[in-house]
Amino acid sequence: MPQRQFIPAGTGLGLQLRRGQHLRVIDPEGGQSGDLVAFSQAGDERLSNGRSVDYAGKVYLSTGDVLWSDRSKRMLTIVADDAGRHDFLYAPCSVEMYRMQYGMTGSPPNCHDNLSSALRQVGITPDALMTPFNLFMNVQVLPDGRLEFLPPKSRAGDAIVFRAEMDLAVAVTSCPCANCNGGAPPKPLAVEIVDDWAKP
Amino acid sequence: MPQRQFIPAGTGLGLQLRRGQHLRVIDPEGGQSGDLVAFSQAGDERLSNGRSVDYAGKVYLSTGDVLWSDRSKRMLTIVADDAGRHDFLYAPCSVEMYRMQYGMTGSPPNCHDNLSSALRQVGITPDALMTPFNLFMNVQVLPDGRLEFLPPKSRAGDAIVFRAEMDLAVAVTSCPCANCNGGAPPKPLAVEIVDDWAKP
Repeated sequence: MPQRQFIPAGTGLGLQLRRGQHLRVIDPEGGQSGDLVAFSQAGDERLSNGRSVDYAGKVYLSTGDVLWSDRSKRMLTIVADDAGRHDFLYAPCSVEMYRMQYGMTGSPPNCHDNLSSALRQVGITPDALMTPFNLFMNVQVLPDGRLEFLPPKSRAGDAIVFRAEMDLAVAVTSCPCANCNGGAPPKPLAVEIVDDWAKP
Repeated sequence: MPQRQFIPAGTGLGLQLRRGQHLRVIDPEGGQSGDLVAFSQAGDERLSNGRSVDYAGKVYLSTGDVLWSDRSKRMLTIVADDAGRHDFLYAPCSVEMYRMQYGMTGSPPNCHDNLSSALRQVGITPDALMTPFNLFMNVQVLPDGRLEFLPPKSRAGDAIVFRAEMDLAVAVTSCPCANCNGGAPPKPLAVEIVDDWAKP
């Protein structure tokens, strides 16, 4: 059985994946969103939402779709997906975002800093981050282009599984922003690295 | 009268803007798309589609909307926009894209390399690029998330005007990809830097 690591509510975790390994991200309680970013282990290739939506021809990615790097290399393939809806449009929440959009002061917990700190755990010196793949985050693009936040579709125990297509440094957070979590306080996520994953 | 610089079909141009100056991008013949990327003049802040769609709450940006940096600073405000539709989802076309999606060999002209070369003209050492603001490019997000290319809405002489909110290094291309130009071969774009722009 693969070891399960928990990502406490509103925090982040750094992971290293070898090509061919699988990363399973689980929403143990349901309705929780998170952010995922990926770098090549050398740090010179970064996840790219622009490449990924171009090559998929769509903004909602799920089973069979690929997350591409900014150098047009395959990084992660989604091989299973219970919830079926994630976002690839929004920047990670950040101190500046909470200040501007919610009037919060000080340094509220936020995915940008949690991703940065998690990336240091896996040898990546973080700079301002790319747009992450926002796990379980449910954003609908309305016909006029406005973006509507809906509660995540993930139910307790739902997971998404990625196959690493290159050696990767990855960071995953549980997002602290209530707006992304159906209005609820943040809950933990969990991850497993699976050497031999077989579709159930 | 501001000086008009032409961007020949399928090429790029680098520009420096001082805070408060206006950049006017014109589609002289109509139906031509282009890419725009922006960096702070020091090169340490980059245009971010994730920040911009987050703060706008929508994917189609037009008059009154702001292009934000990855450090949550205002870079460019759209102060006028004849065509009213541009894309902020697609990565720039690249050698790899033409190879994978069109089976082209060799090194076809492409916006990624044209943007990189244009950025060198304004002191930015290019790395793999962020998702650009795709001028006049008309991509509709369908209800199921699929992306549909439509011809640009720009007619001959249509323009979009940006106010620089910080000192900027900017690159603008005329996109060589027929798919982005209603199936037509690429045409030139033109730019003007305007010190005192007044809405006509």
